[in-house]
Amino acid sequence: MDIEDLLMIPGPVHLHGRIIRAMVKQMIGHRSKKFSEIMEYCVNGMKKLFGTSKDVYLISGSGTAGLEAAISSFSKVKRITCIDNGKFGDRLGKIASRYTKTDVVRFDWGKPILLDDVEKSLAEGSEALAFVHNETSTGLLNSAEKIVKLAKEYDCLVIMDAITSAGGDVVKMDEWGVDVAITGSQKCLGIPPGLSAVAVSEKAWEYYNESCPFYLDLAAYKKKAKDNQTPYTPAVSLFFALEEALKMIEEEGLENRIKRHRTLSKAVRAWVEETGLEMFPQTNEVSMYSNTVTAIKMPNGIKDSELRGNLMKEYGILVSGGQEHLKGKIFRIGTMGNVGKRELVTTLAALEDILSRYINLKSGLHSAFEILREI
Amino acid sequence: MDIEDLLMIPGPVHLHGRIIRAMVKQMIGHRSKKFSEIMEYCVNGMKKLFGTSKDVYLISGSGTAGLEAAISSFSKVKRITCIDNGKFGDRLGKIASRYTKTDVVRFDWGKPILLDDVEKSLAEGSEALAFVHNETSTGLLNSAEKIVKLAKEYDCLVIMDAITSAGGDVVKMDEWGVDVAITGSQKCLGIPPGLSAVAVSEKAWEYYNESCPFYLDLAAYKKKAKDNQTPYTPAVSLFFALEEALKMIEEEGLENRIKRHRTLSKAVRAWVEETGLEMFPQTNEVSMYSNTVTAIKMPNGIKDSELRGNLMKEYGILVSGGQEHLKGKIFRIGTMGNVGKRELVTTLAALEDILSRYINLKSGLHSAFEILREI
Repeated sequence: MDIEDLLMIPGPVHLHGRIIRAMVKQMIGHRSKKFSEIMEYCVNGMKKLFGTSKDVYLISGSGTAGLEAAISSFSKVKRITCIDNGKFGDRLGKIASRYTKTDVVRFDWGKPILLDDVEKSLAEGSEALAFVHNETSTGLLNSAEKIVKLAKEYDCLVIMDAITSAGGDVVKMDEWGVDVAITGSQKCLGIPPGLSAVAVSEKAWEYYNESCPFYLDLAAYKKKAKDNQTPYTPAVSLFFALEEALKMIEEEGLENRIKRHRTLSKAVRAWVEETGLEMFPQTNEVSMYSNTVTAIKMPNGIKDSELRGNLMKEYGILVSGGQEHLKGKIFRIGTMGNVGKRELVTTLAALEDILSRYINLKSGLHSAFEILREI
Repeated sequence: MDIEDLLMIPGPVHLHGRIIRAMVKQMIGHRSKKFSEIMEYCVNGMKKLFGTSKDVYLISGSGTAGLEAAISSFSKVKRITCIDNGKFGDRLGKIASRYTKTDVVRFDWGKPILLDDVEKSLAEGSEALAFVHNETSTGLLNSAEKIVKLAKEYDCLVIMDAITSAGGDVVKMDEWGVDVAITGSQKCLGIPPGLSAVAVSEKAWEYYNESCPFYLDLAAYKKKAKDNQTPYTPAVSLFFALEEALKMIEEEGLENRIKRHRTLSKAVRAWVEETGLEMFPQTNEVSMYSNTVTAIKMPNGIKDSELRGNLMKEYGILVSGGQEHLKGKIFRIGTMGNVGKRELVTTLAALEDILSRYINLKSGLHSAFEILREI
């Protein structure tokens, strides 16, 4: 039988039927009033997820396109510090170094950021700091507030990758003092990949670099934003999906949504502890665990291909493996977007079934149930 | 009543029900075998539309993203000549000048390209030439074969914008000697906007510039293409649509499809002539008229807002106006993708209805009918 996949990866995520149906529409003109109305609604909705009253620009492209738009458009800085404690932090450095002098402050993947090391780099003359809020590759939630506070002491422009936090965890761009924040469509928003959003403060424009890429030049987006349009043809069907996603978020309430994400990931952690598995992030502080993706060490006695392979083959459930040097060493469960109790319990139960064939495992399901009663 | 729009613009185009239904699917993992199989099918299908056996890379972004990927990735040239006889030719120059020394050879929008002028620029030391095959803004089909032949005499790398020709008109990348060709999803392919494709010859890599934008760096796409993957999360639902579109093209047959596009645009031209309206492109050579979009002068006695406004209000049909300085001076009818006789006759009839309230107009419908009997 051809089982329909259940995606429990940190994006792209499982689609709610309402999202799929929202795209079942005839095409509309991208310069039409109809499109502008949708865009206006989307921009306003996105502002709430970023916790900002600033401009939000919508780019047709993946989250990486949004990151590069943010970094390159505001790259008229003498030097930028990029924090790398995971694959996506590493990516920030790779992007930034194409545009300006870049200092990458590296930590082992999975280890928390040490502010002293960041400060040392800032003190050497950085005018900007870029960091990842929720590091998808390791399941660590970096301490945004503290990092931004430090950067502000050095009067730095702050660029925050909120790709896997906005819409699923607390993001307070204005309150924290973030200048530029980025997110992607296929994560906590719960729609297909192909759209990214960039929120931009006034201050960022002081660092505007007109020789950034044409397609990613945020000045062109800003110019068209007044009329709720985009400079180049937007991915219209994904805007249909985004509109529906934001309606669903409004119905659920952003606070409830964040609580759901937190409870789901807390349940995963309770399950991990009870089963005797081990969390990958090297921290004991609960506040440092991601609330949208949980990274778990691959136990001895089972291979990645056995765990994730059988889970897909028998149950049609996809969880993620490790990336780069973490391949085979961890597996990751996404709890993002519009998934709930049912999808998570299914996933944990199926994981237990597979794992218990290879290793001694205590059931952790009841610990998860208990937590999940909160939602 | 809320009339569902009928898009008769040069992209995004009206969607066939099969395309819409192809996107009614649960999300799949972008690193899964399922996705790779779809991608492989899409890449092979796109090769046929480009007339090439070279690599084709699929980028999540609009056609402009594809253009910039092509130009920036291969910008290690001393100088590039860009031909501008319309808005999209102008765009090539704007993109190129961010990466290398650029000479723009300008012609009035709507006027054919004079090869002597191009040659003069090439002779001044250009190592690359970029031009638009089908100029959407003016309805002119530029003489690709002749332009490429000339560029090859100067041993230039040739980059061709085939955004509104590939899949709807004859494109023979390999036979003509084009090195890099680009197209977009929302044009002749007949799917929603948000994907672009870039076909790349081996020669192009001699000009690879590693400091091109990270997101648009074709070397990253090439590296992942071996495994039928993309470097960054692709717009998966648009790949579902592309797969279906390419199946439809295979069923129809590419030759038949091109014939359909040619017949539809020929019918528009016959209608224009019979009604007494005037074509915008300043040529009498039939081979220079676009077969995917027809640009018609706005007749005296009617304003753009009256013509296009009433057409939308009463019939729900959208045709395009002019862009930039052509605003209000022309209107454009797209005959792209999966539209046929029914959509075109509807459009021409509705246009006659509106036009005849403002100006004296002979009916041109029977001239169109006659041509349309060919398909």
